[in-house]
Amino acid sequence: MAALETFPNSHPGRDYTIVHTCPEFTALCPKTGQPDFGTIRISYVPDRLCVELKSLKLYLFGYRSRGIFYEQVTNVILDDLVQALSPRRMTVEGNFRVRGGISTVVQATYEEKRRRGRAR
Amino acid sequence: MAALETFPNSHPGRDYTIVHTCPEFTALCPKTGQPDFGTIRISYVPDRLCVELKSLKLYLFGYRSRGIFYEQVTNVILDDLVQALSPRRMTVEGNFRVRGGISTVVQATYEEKRRRGRAR
Amino acid sequence: MAALETFPNSHPGRDYTIVHTCPEFTALCPKTGQPDFGTIRISYVPDRLCVELKSLKLYLFGYRSRGIFYEQVTNVILDDLVQALSPRRMTVEGNFRVRGGISTVVQATYEEKRRRGRAR
Amino acid sequence: MAALETFPNSHPGRDYTIVHTCPEFTALCPKTGQPDFGTIRISYVPDRLCVELKSLKLYLFGYRSRGIFYEQVTNVILDDLVQALSPRRMTVEGNFRVRGGISTVVQATYEEKRRRGRAR
Amino acid sequence: MAALETFPNSHPGRDYTIVHTCPEFTALCPKTGQPDFGTIRISYVPDRLCVELKSLKLYLFGYRSRGIFYEQVTNVILDDLVQALSPRRMTVEGNFRVRGGISTVVQATYEEKRRRGRAR
Amino acid sequence: MAALETFPNSHPGRDYTIVHTCPEFTALCPKTGQPDFGTIRISYVPDRLCVELKSLKLYLFGYRSRGIFYEQVTNVILDDLVQALSPRRMTVEGNFRVRGGISTVVQATYEEKRRRGRAR
Amino acid sequence: MAALETFPNSHPGRDYTIVHTCPEFTALCPKTGQPDFGTIRISYVPDRLCVELKSLKLYLFGYRSRGIFYEQVTNVILDDLVQALSPRRMTVEGNFRVRGGISTVVQATYEEKRRRGRAR
Amino acid sequence: MAALETFPNSHPGRDYTIVHTCPEFTALCPKTGQPDFGTIRISYVPDRLCVELKSLKLYLFGYRSRGIFYEQVTNVILDDLVQALSPRRMTVEGNFRVRGGISTVVQATYEEKRRRGRAR
Amino acid sequence: MAALETFPNSHPGRDYTIVHTCPEFTALCPKTGQPDFGTIRISYVPDRLCVELKSLKLYLFGYRSRGIFYEQVTNVILDDLVQALSPRRMTVEGNFRVRGGISTVVQATYEEKRRRGRAR
Amino acid sequence: MAALETFPNSHPGRDYTIVHTCPEFTALCPKTGQPDFGTIRISYVPDRLCVELKSLKLYLFGYRSRGIFYEQVTNVILDDLVQALSPRRMTVEGNFRVRGGISTVVQATYEEKRRRGRAR
Repeated sequence: MAALETFPNSHPGRDYTIVHTCPEFTALCPKTGQPDFGTIRISYVPDRLCVELKSLKLYLFGYRSRGIFYEQVTNVILDDLVQALSPRRMTVEGNFRVRGGISTVVQATYEEKRRRGRAR
Repeated sequence: MAALETFPNSHPGRDYTIVHTCPEFTALCPKTGQPDFGTIRISYVPDRLCVELKSLKLYLFGYRSRGIFYEQVTNVILDDLVQALSPRRMTVEGNFRVRGGISTVVQATYEEKRRRGRAR
Repeated sequence: MAALETFPNSHPGRDYTIVHTCPEFTALCPKTGQPDFGTIRISYVPDRLCVELKSLKLYLFGYRSRGIFYEQVTNVILDDLVQALSPRRMTVEGNFRVRGGISTVVQATYEEKRRRGRAR
Repeated sequence: MAALETFPNSHPGRDYTIVHTCPEFTALCPKTGQPDFGTIRISYVPDRLCVELKSLKLYLFGYRSRGIFYEQVTNVILDDLVQALSPRRMTVEGNFRVRGGISTVVQATYEEKRRRGRAR
Repeated sequence: MAALETFPNSHPGRDYTIVHTCPEFTALCPKTGQPDFGTIRISYVPDRLCVELKSLKLYLFGYRSRGIFYEQVTNVILDDLVQALSPRRMTVEGNFRVRGGISTVVQATYEEKRRRGRAR
Repeated sequence: MAALETFPNSHPGRDYTIVHTCPEFTALCPKTGQPDFGTIRISYVPDRLCVELKSLKLYLFGYRSRGIFYEQVTNVILDDLVQALSPRRMTVEGNFRVRGGISTVVQATYEEKRRRGRAR
Repeated sequence: MAALETFPNSHPGRDYTIVHTCPEFTALCPKTGQPDFGTIRISYVPDRLCVELKSLKLYLFGYRSRGIFYEQVTNVILDDLVQALSPRRMTVEGNFRVRGGISTVVQATYEEKRRRGRAR
Repeated sequence: MAALETFPNSHPGRDYTIVHTCPEFTALCPKTGQPDFGTIRISYVPDRLCVELKSLKLYLFGYRSRGIFYEQVTNVILDDLVQALSPRRMTVEGNFRVRGGISTVVQATYEEKRRRGRAR
Repeated sequence: MAALETFPNSHPGRDYTIVHTCPEFTALCPKTGQPDFGTIRISYVPDRLCVELKSLKLYLFGYRSRGIFYEQVTNVILDDLVQALSPRRMTVEGNFRVRGGISTVVQATYEEKRRRGRAR
Repeated sequence: MAALETFPNSHPGRDYTIVHTCPEFTALCPKTGQPDFGTIRISYVPDRLCVELKSLKLYLFGYRSRGIFYEQVTNVILDDLVQALSPRRMTVEGNFRVRGGISTVVQATYEEKRRRGRAR
């Protein structure tokens, strides 16, 4: 997989939100080997680091030849981005196209531990 | 009815949401025997198990020749999925097409007992 | 007016929501005698009883020749349905078409007394 | 039925088009006595006369208590307007709401005879 | 299959168009036995006869348990309606939901022979 | 300005909401004298009085020849309606069309004092 | 009324189309004195002259205090623009908001005489 | 590339249209190696043969690892389908997602020779 | 950069919201020098001062030739407006068009300090 | 201005259509110096040459600092592309955002001379 690159957050003193939406995501179904298609939406509050857009594109394109289930890929993308960015909060949503007459959305969220502690 | 099959949740350590939407649901009206049509939307937080997509499709297709009311079918699908998956939380919504100039939506929710206990 | 008929709630042990939407509502303006048109949306949590769909259609069609204001008809439909169903909670919304360049929405809600008592 | 009133066309030297759209049309089904709902769209090229808007509204409201089929009402409205206006060309379209899971559109056109003669 | 019933055209002296749209069509795939879903749209210029709406609904519901391909069912519905109505012109369009990531539309037209002869 | 007329609230025992939307609002820019256009949306919980629809239309048309800024007109309409109706709660929203490539929305809310006191 | 100003067409050797759409048109109803609102859409093939945008805006704003019917104002705007620009072809369409439950569109077209002669 | 399979046209006596739409098309840019995404829409009038849906899906998926330009891939899909089906008429349209701020549509049509001869 | 001009808030005694939406924002990418495009949406509760619309337009146009990243420009616009207006609360959202198949939204909020103190 | 680059048409034996849509076009108003924004849509039938996408993007970005009217820029883009590509047919459409409450579309077409001769 392509490495996720980062750049320093210009306004770390403020909690603000960044949302990246990629409607060109594709992976393979691990059971049938057939391609799956969907939209990946990443929403986060940066701490020290932001994700560099081009490296994010290449990272997501890295799934093109991998066999992986909807539920897993959404969680793995979240894990990888959390490891690379240590964000204050992050949600990854995968919105996958119709298979067998059924469409599927998976949504997973990470929240910084000390944050959770001081949450209301 | 076809059995609902499951597979192990790859990320049980995290509360996350899975939503399946099936716009190809049909059953029979128990009073008139005429077909009803609608969209079934299932949203849940998995615990140990996720529902396998193909068995879900076959399960929903199992209503094709059954006579059952809107209010009941929505609750029964919720009961069956809760029994098969023991999810942390689940909502089933049935959105049924116009009959007699009136469209109908039914929405039912299950929440794990110990969860409810520690809910704020 | 046609009587509102009911049938027993198949799942009284669970709080769940039923929404009926009728875009074919018409009554008369009591001042001008001219027809008014709108959409009536009824949303409720049933207790022991659900409203039977065909009797609801006939009940709403009963306003066709009555002169009644927007504000009043929305509240009267709520009163009649609460009396017939004793629901746990119910909202009626009337969405009326443009008159004199202005469109109007009226929304009224009923909540069971003991519920209100234990509401957070 | 209310009479259709007219006023003189201010620009009879020019062929131009007038379209009136009334989404508040209702009549009764002659078989069941139940109300039907739809949108009536009238498009015409005036000759000497235009239809007065308020009388058109009252004329269309005149169907509120009449039992008449979709196919017939669309053609009868066309007949009545052609008789009142002697337009150069006129199309009436009735777009009726879902009954038994099926929606229906009926569209009928009149063209002045001498016009048709010189048509290409 | 349920018989298609007809009623006399009230305005046979005029060529006009009737369109019926049924978004609640379902049949079975003859290869897999799985249900297919789609919208059937019937547009025609009546001659002596119009199709009765309720019998049309029952006729279309008659495909619920039949195995038949998209291309064939669209043409067979056209054949059956032409035989029952002898219309001046008729088009049947089947708009079928996604299978294997691909949606399909089939559209077939019939035109009365003597008409075709005098067509420009 | 035309006077705002009122009529007695038929259901003062219940808190319910009335929303009037007028997309035909126009006033003049006090700096340039050029017309401004927008939609005024009034949402309120009535106490003893409701606003009469025709007088509301005439009141809003009264701004047609007045020079007044977006921010001010939204607040003044709120002030006038609160004075006329003494509502339990009211929000006025002005949604103004593009000027200099920028569109503007202004939203102001009034809440009855004793209400605010017992608010959670 | 404000004068319509023009500027020379930079490409008179080519037939091309210019469309101006003004959704901020308002005039008065000559019967009731109440304001009417609509969208004016002007489409033309210029010959030697194009209409200057700011003067067009002021010209259309000139109807703000005039009493004039839908059918007439659409034709008069066409007449005035044809006189000012001598275009090769021009269509004016007025799309007026709902009055008495009915919306109205008026569309009028001018075509240069010698053009019409050589038209196919 | 996967072979395009066919099945016999059940109604060769009638000219009718079949449209397949695949929004899950992806290939590689031959210059950059980066993935391109788009929707392929195939519309044809069958002669003796129809294309089998599953083989069409596999054929289109065959472009997943090939480097090919928008203009070329649209024409090559048309060439391959014409060779496999000998249709009476066929159009292929590729609707490709934004690259460098610009989206692109390519549309190519084949018409049977003897048809073209007798075309009006 | 053009200076942000202000005018006094006519209703400082009331907390109300002003939203300006500018879909015509463009800046340069600091890495490639290529133009970026997006919509800037500014929402605030004024204290003593409101921003003058024309100066806001000129201020935003001032980014046309500056190289600046999405995350930074959204925060800098917020900083500049907070400094000029001292609002009670303000949110700036930048919604940027697709680059490399990915669209991006950045949203930052400022809240007056003493306000935050008395927040619930 | 950046030069328009071309590449050879892979299928010159067939008339087919290419459409490029750029919603990120901006130029300056020659009267006020203020920026104008719009969407440029280029549709053509290539002969020997196609326009290279990246050079098209750079060419369109070349108008960013030029003062030019709507009518002129649409025609000049057409002239430049016709000179670079010698297409069989080409249409350029500029769809410009609201100025003074009026939006504007300009559409110009070029057709190869010998083509026009053999056109029906």
